[in-house]
Amino acid sequence: KIDSARLWDTINETAKFGGTPKGGVRRLTLGPEDKLVRNWFRKACEDAGLEVHVDALGSMFALRKGRDMSKAPIGVGSHLDTQPTGGKFDGILGVLGALEVVRTLNDAGIETEMPICIANWTNEEGSRFAPAMMASAAYVGDFTTDDILSRKDIAGVTVGEALDEIGYRGDVAVGTQKFSGFVELHIEQGPILEAESKTIGVVDSGQGVLWFDGKITGFESHAGSTPMPLRKDALATLSEIVLATERVVGNIGALGTIGEAVIANPSRNVIPGEIAFTMDLRSADAGKLDAIEKGVRDAIKEIAAHRKVDVAFDKVWHKPPTHFNKDFVNAVETAATSLGYSHRRITSGAGHDACNLNNIMPTAMVFIPSKDGISHNELESSTQEDCAAGANVLMHTVLALAGV
Amino acid sequence: KIDSARLWDTINETAKFGGTPKGGVRRLTLGPEDKLVRNWFRKACEDAGLEVHVDALGSMFALRKGRDMSKAPIGVGSHLDTQPTGGKFDGILGVLGALEVVRTLNDAGIETEMPICIANWTNEEGSRFAPAMMASAAYVGDFTTDDILSRKDIAGVTVGEALDEIGYRGDVAVGTQKFSGFVELHIEQGPILEAESKTIGVVDSGQGVLWFDGKITGFESHAGSTPMPLRKDALATLSEIVLATERVVGNIGALGTIGEAVIANPSRNVIPGEIAFTMDLRSADAGKLDAIEKGVRDAIKEIAAHRKVDVAFDKVWHKPPTHFNKDFVNAVETAATSLGYSHRRITSGAGHDACNLNNIMPTAMVFIPSKDGISHNELESSTQEDCAAGANVLMHTVLALAGV
Ligand SMILES: NC(=O)NCCC(=O)O
Ligand SMILES: NC(=O)NCCC(=O)O
Repeated sequence: KIDSARLWDTINETAKFGGTPKGGVRRLTLGPEDKLVRNWFRKACEDAGLEVHVDALGSMFALRKGRDMSKAPIGVGSHLDTQPTGGKFDGILGVLGALEVVRTLNDAGIETEMPICIANWTNEEGSRFAPAMMASAAYVGDFTTDDILSRKDIAGVTVGEALDEIGYRGDVAVGTQKFSGFVELHIEQGPILEAESKTIGVVDSGQGVLWFDGKITGFESHAGSTPMPLRKDALATLSEIVLATERVVGNIGALGTIGEAVIANPSRNVIPGEIAFTMDLRSADAGKLDAIEKGVRDAIKEIAAHRKVDVAFDKVWHKPPTHFNKDFVNAVETAATSLGYSHRRITSGAGHDACNLNNIMPTAMVFIPSKDGISHNELESSTQEDCAAGANVLMHTVLALAGV
Repeated sequence: KIDSARLWDTINETAKFGGTPKGGVRRLTLGPEDKLVRNWFRKACEDAGLEVHVDALGSMFALRKGRDMSKAPIGVGSHLDTQPTGGKFDGILGVLGALEVVRTLNDAGIETEMPICIANWTNEEGSRFAPAMMASAAYVGDFTTDDILSRKDIAGVTVGEALDEIGYRGDVAVGTQKFSGFVELHIEQGPILEAESKTIGVVDSGQGVLWFDGKITGFESHAGSTPMPLRKDALATLSEIVLATERVVGNIGALGTIGEAVIANPSRNVIPGEIAFTMDLRSADAGKLDAIEKGVRDAIKEIAAHRKVDVAFDKVWHKPPTHFNKDFVNAVETAATSLGYSHRRITSGAGHDACNLNNIMPTAMVFIPSKDGISHNELESSTQEDCAAGANVLMHTVLALAGV
């Protein structure tokens, strides 16, 4: 069994890098706080006897040797970046849980057949740069390294510049570090495990995700002298799009979110003439994902026509639903059962690096409950016991897969 | 008659201070471009033999002596600041038209009984600092000078700091420059004169205006794992408020605009948890103004309840409808008739400094047509002929009121 108190202390220790007054963490990818937590993580891995290297997109890999070094390691880990209003568990539990597994194996003097490699993937959150799970997507070949290096944040800073700024543009080409498979421990970020009083979620699938960039072009005019019927109000247009999206996803049983919306040149007495917005659509069912995209596109067309405005709506990311590897999922389930934790199969609502890696290797995930299902919020919380349970399941899964 | 070409050239000359590629002007109050146009205006007035002074809120006054200096001058003028997406006529025509009147009187060697004073009022637009028509409101005692000096823009800069920054915190107390009355020439900013092919609008009233600051507090959560019914989406809430406002003002026959809306800590995969917004409600009828405020407040209450979010909604400005002075309005009408211009009585949709001044002195306004009724937009446009017609009406009104 892992050391529950040590894991808990480690989580709280790293939470100071970007810690917020409300008890959350604001640690945007490749920012100054991310640099601090990366430096901390590198030292912690080296102290645990691991060999650390960094790839061209800043993803960090910490290798624990196995008896058979001809085999690629079993990967474990997640990400250390957070949302602007993030918590101290999302991603972090996966990396620090993996570190705790290695520390426990070290303490017990356990050697594995295959090596083990902890990964900290760059920009999993996708708030500063799009898309989310960026570095693992490049790792599996969904994007080229150069494409990703040129992506810009809202201030115009590229991924390449941000990497150089914090000194984490590594010298290892993306994809160099091979894995035999990957297991990611994560908080559920949803309400199901808690509602059903289950300690462990055996994740067998993940929702598909569509991201869009939208731009509404109406016409700026005077709030006091433009009759209501003559207006081309970009905000009223967006309002109809937001509510239509709710209706479309509600009818089909899916999810839809407009997370960003920025009025160009706003003024109290000017009718908004231009708005840039984003949209996030999700379903675990590929057919439903297609259906909600069509429903939203039809709605936007109709709204743009009757509002007499232009709406550009471009897909910037398409992640199909994930079906995790049966053997790996079974390994997680067996570990949970043998440790005596209550568990259930579950679909991940969030995207994860393991979902990308699943394209080219066997992967699976372990979930633990999130208090009130809250995530991407400073109030995100899980108990020490559940974190320890997740790390134990992770360890026993890895031991089964890597061989003792 | 005024010199039509000289007035037109002057308008185009000053349009370079903050001129935009689309032919508009972006000259936010007390910014660097405002400083440039103020310096230009001071010199132009001095060249015309006027004596210029500046009050504690930066409003500029340029005095042309009359035969009877015991009488307070007839005021003319408007404002030189613009919206972020402003045109080159809104306010500017009123100041430069007044300058053209003085230049014409000088050229013709015409002396008036009462003095004439051109005013350039600070922050008429209200985009950088709230409320609009700020300096004229302080002039009539609606706000204290200290209150106004402490108002902040979105970057936290106060009016006082902005005045010092451009060197326009004058040494004359607000209200020192007295007027016997005030006449303001302005573009209509609406579609009525053009639609009816009238050259001159004889403005006899102005709409009342209510401004509000709103803040929606929902709850940030994960776009991928938060079920739709459990969300407290601040943007979906705002969307309902925007559309409800349209319905309320539509039913009552008034105007409503949400001009600004800013999501706190936005991220593509986070449900918006907090939004600050503004609202502008207008009607020329005080009863209707009350009714739309009540309608909007009731709608917000209902929306906040079913969305399970908090909505703060605070009135930050209340300008009752304006009824201009009968004698001054008649003087404008007589001037338009005697000059042979087609004209009609009209209500101003926009607020104007003359509306504030009307509280303590007789005032009236002269409107000319706006192309397609467009204003607060870079495409705002009026013809040289109409500008000249407006300035002629202004001159003949002033001569009638000041006495030759
Ligand atoms: N784990 C997590 O919240 N990832 C962010 C990617 C997404 O699902 O939007
Ligand atoms: N003239 C003008 O557009 N003034 C701005 C004040 C307002 O009406 O909102």
